[in-house]
Amino acid sequence: MEILKKRIIKDGLAVGTEILKVDSFLNHQVDVTLFELIGAEFRTRFDDVADKVDKILTIEASGIAVAAFTAKYFGSVPVVFAKKEQPSTMAEDYYFSEVMSFTKRKLSSIRIGKKFLAAGERCLIIDDFLAHGQAALGLARIAQQAGAEVLGAGIVIEKEFQEGGARLREKGYRVESLAVVSKIEDGAIYFKE
Amino acid sequence: MEILKKRIIKDGLAVGTEILKVDSFLNHQVDVTLFELIGAEFRTRFDDVADKVDKILTIEASGIAVAAFTAKYFGSVPVVFAKKEQPSTMAEDYYFSEVMSFTKRKLSSIRIGKKFLAAGERCLIIDDFLAHGQAALGLARIAQQAGAEVLGAGIVIEKEFQEGGARLREKGYRVESLAVVSKIEDGAIYFKE
Repeated sequence: MEILKKRIIKDGLAVGTEILKVDSFLNHQVDVTLFELIGAEFRTRFDDVADKVDKILTIEASGIAVAAFTAKYFGSVPVVFAKKEQPSTMAEDYYFSEVMSFTKRKLSSIRIGKKFLAAGERCLIIDDFLAHGQAALGLARIAQQAGAEVLGAGIVIEKEFQEGGARLREKGYRVESLAVVSKIEDGAIYFKE
Repeated sequence: MEILKKRIIKDGLAVGTEILKVDSFLNHQVDVTLFELIGAEFRTRFDDVADKVDKILTIEASGIAVAAFTAKYFGSVPVVFAKKEQPSTMAEDYYFSEVMSFTKRKLSSIRIGKKFLAAGERCLIIDDFLAHGQAALGLARIAQQAGAEVLGAGIVIEKEFQEGGARLREKGYRVESLAVVSKIEDGAIYFKE
């Protein structure tokens, strides 16, 4: 997605060899005009399965707006966002999965209430980043627990060198990434051709 | 907002005298069609100041989708969502404020990167719930630190009996709540007339 890559080059910040900061438009400040285009692009990428999508799954916090704008282009199906901890108001049954956050350097548990994901439901996983793949794999494990089907994972920015994409694809999941970063080096961001 | 109140009656769950669970459409599973209507309603409520809004402020996680859909109706201004902890990728200067979560029974710190809120910027605060007012007051304190102006707070559901709305209004903030719950009792939800 050219407009996204241009925006990453313009406003993204490469830190060391691992971190790409895009907090001015994606995950702290949000550019909703760009998010509309991202939602539309996911529709184009997954158009062949669009009629089958029952639900969009994502994970709080920065996946939520991307997923919500994407849902509009898939018939406004419900978006379910996994929660990262168990608030006291969420006492009912839930599916959960352990997820390691490398940026936050901690293990956390993600949860989805059982009533929001049913056996046979067909889901798209949508997230802002795919790095080591922990969040997407965690959501896929939750879908598996529920007996739901994962039609694919739509990712705004995939950091190819951190191998989450490879892990998901090895497991047979279809992954559509709108920008694939192959390398971050000396302050420069390189995209996969 | 009648359609919202009807939805709360239909799908909300009253727990004890304090908790209203709306996780089937607002803060775990998200109904984007309703969120569009909510965004449009906030525009109607704040139409007199709509031309002045430079930015929409909210707090992760469940405020994000509401704020993003609202931004569309205010000329797609940027949405900035406060983060609840400091990830390792957020080392730059930030504004912060302490916020008590009564549902999660813990004190947390909310932060906004200084580069995303400037002196003189005029903001709308948007959030899904107004209970004790901690989140909205925390955002208002951050705006004050930045020298930004708060034009008002737009709230999807205000729980009037928990007095966050009274606190905000006492401090001179304009609060527009789309549904105001006056009482939760014996499994029933009562709205302010």
